[in-house]
Amino acid sequence: MTGPDIVIAPSILAADFANLAAEARAVEGAADWLHVDVMDNHFVPNLTIGPAVVASLRATTAIPFDCHLMIEDPKRWAPGYAELGAYNVTFHAEACADPVALARDLRAAGSKAGLAIDRDTPVEPYLELLPHFDTLLIMTIKAGFGGQRFLPELLDKVRLARRHADAGHLELRIEVDGGIADDTIAAAAEAGADAFVAGTAVYGASDPAEACRKLRALARAATR
Amino acid sequence: MTGPDIVIAPSILAADFANLAAEARAVEGAADWLHVDVMDNHFVPNLTIGPAVVASLRATTAIPFDCHLMIEDPKRWAPGYAELGAYNVTFHAEACADPVALARDLRAAGSKAGLAIDRDTPVEPYLELLPHFDTLLIMTIKAGFGGQRFLPELLDKVRLARRHADAGHLELRIEVDGGIADDTIAAAAEAGADAFVAGTAVYGASDPAEACRKLRALARAATR
Repeated sequence: MTGPDIVIAPSILAADFANLAAEARAVEGAADWLHVDVMDNHFVPNLTIGPAVVASLRATTAIPFDCHLMIEDPKRWAPGYAELGAYNVTFHAEACADPVALARDLRAAGSKAGLAIDRDTPVEPYLELLPHFDTLLIMTIKAGFGGQRFLPELLDKVRLARRHADAGHLELRIEVDGGIADDTIAAAAEAGADAFVAGTAVYGASDPAEACRKLRALARAATR
Repeated sequence: MTGPDIVIAPSILAADFANLAAEARAVEGAADWLHVDVMDNHFVPNLTIGPAVVASLRATTAIPFDCHLMIEDPKRWAPGYAELGAYNVTFHAEACADPVALARDLRAAGSKAGLAIDRDTPVEPYLELLPHFDTLLIMTIKAGFGGQRFLPELLDKVRLARRHADAGHLELRIEVDGGIADDTIAAAAEAGADAFVAGTAVYGASDPAEACRKLRALARAATR
């Protein structure tokens, strides 16, 4: 995927849901994407927000939306998020019988296509699908809730995917999600990630924009 | 249920989800409850908001929350909304094997207990359960989306439930949800409803608070 060398994507999971427009504004100019966690009580044991919230929020900010669908039946629901103007729509491999077909649907609906794998899913079976995707999201916690501690052993999946992408000359964004903060982002960047979801590390900071800039600087320094 | 003679409950389904705190403030002092539509992509083909949004919004307003759970497995999820401070938690009869047990759980968790029946569900099988509930919500559209047209034939269910509640000296709030507006609220009030969910009629109005007051006056006039 072309674009910035490092993508910082604050997660609204850690934001104030009663004031999302203000929370988006707080990272404008500092965040590359806004990470929108969609959960349906079924794929994960939590329910967050859906299309109506994405549509309302989309109208208030120019930040590209990175919709992460932790839902069942993404074949049915994912293209709707692209139609609402999401920049990238990522669905879970575990929830989809034909990821390549859905990637095609997403691109036809106007967004980039992302494939996510949860904490306990190996990356190997999906390496051959990567040419069809713009983003590979590797969970560095178990999907479902914010505030969990980063699991560094999951960076082996990032390394493997990055080697595979480089060998195939793929333009693939590798995104990590879960526990990314000042003390973990360098290791994720060294492993080959170039997009970083950060919830508490951004929205728990007194200055969310400054937190984004610091995370980017740390990731950049680690890959130089 | 004791409380105001008429309850006006604006639905956040018609509000601006990017600015929910402001939308709640816009009806403070004019609305009796804020109707919070929770949908999970499974019980209904839409996904709205869940506990994190309820928690964020709860911290910003004193309006009692009327959580309407259009979700599967309410036995698992409904008490969490009571624990978050909802005043009334309503789940769907169609989604629950033992509504009376769940009503008990809700009251133990600190909220009123509501039973909802969707457009195509008859009320008769549930009349004998009403002594265990504070609220009966009768859908006057098909659950799942706002903006649908009110179906006046569904008021027969309201009449039947009200007669049953009166005969049994039940303190039962009968709530109607779907297409309630200036031109439909009187008929619903005459049929015996005393709580009224209004989405577009409130949040589509230039003055949402004034729209609440007008709806209340129309309902009151119809029952005098």
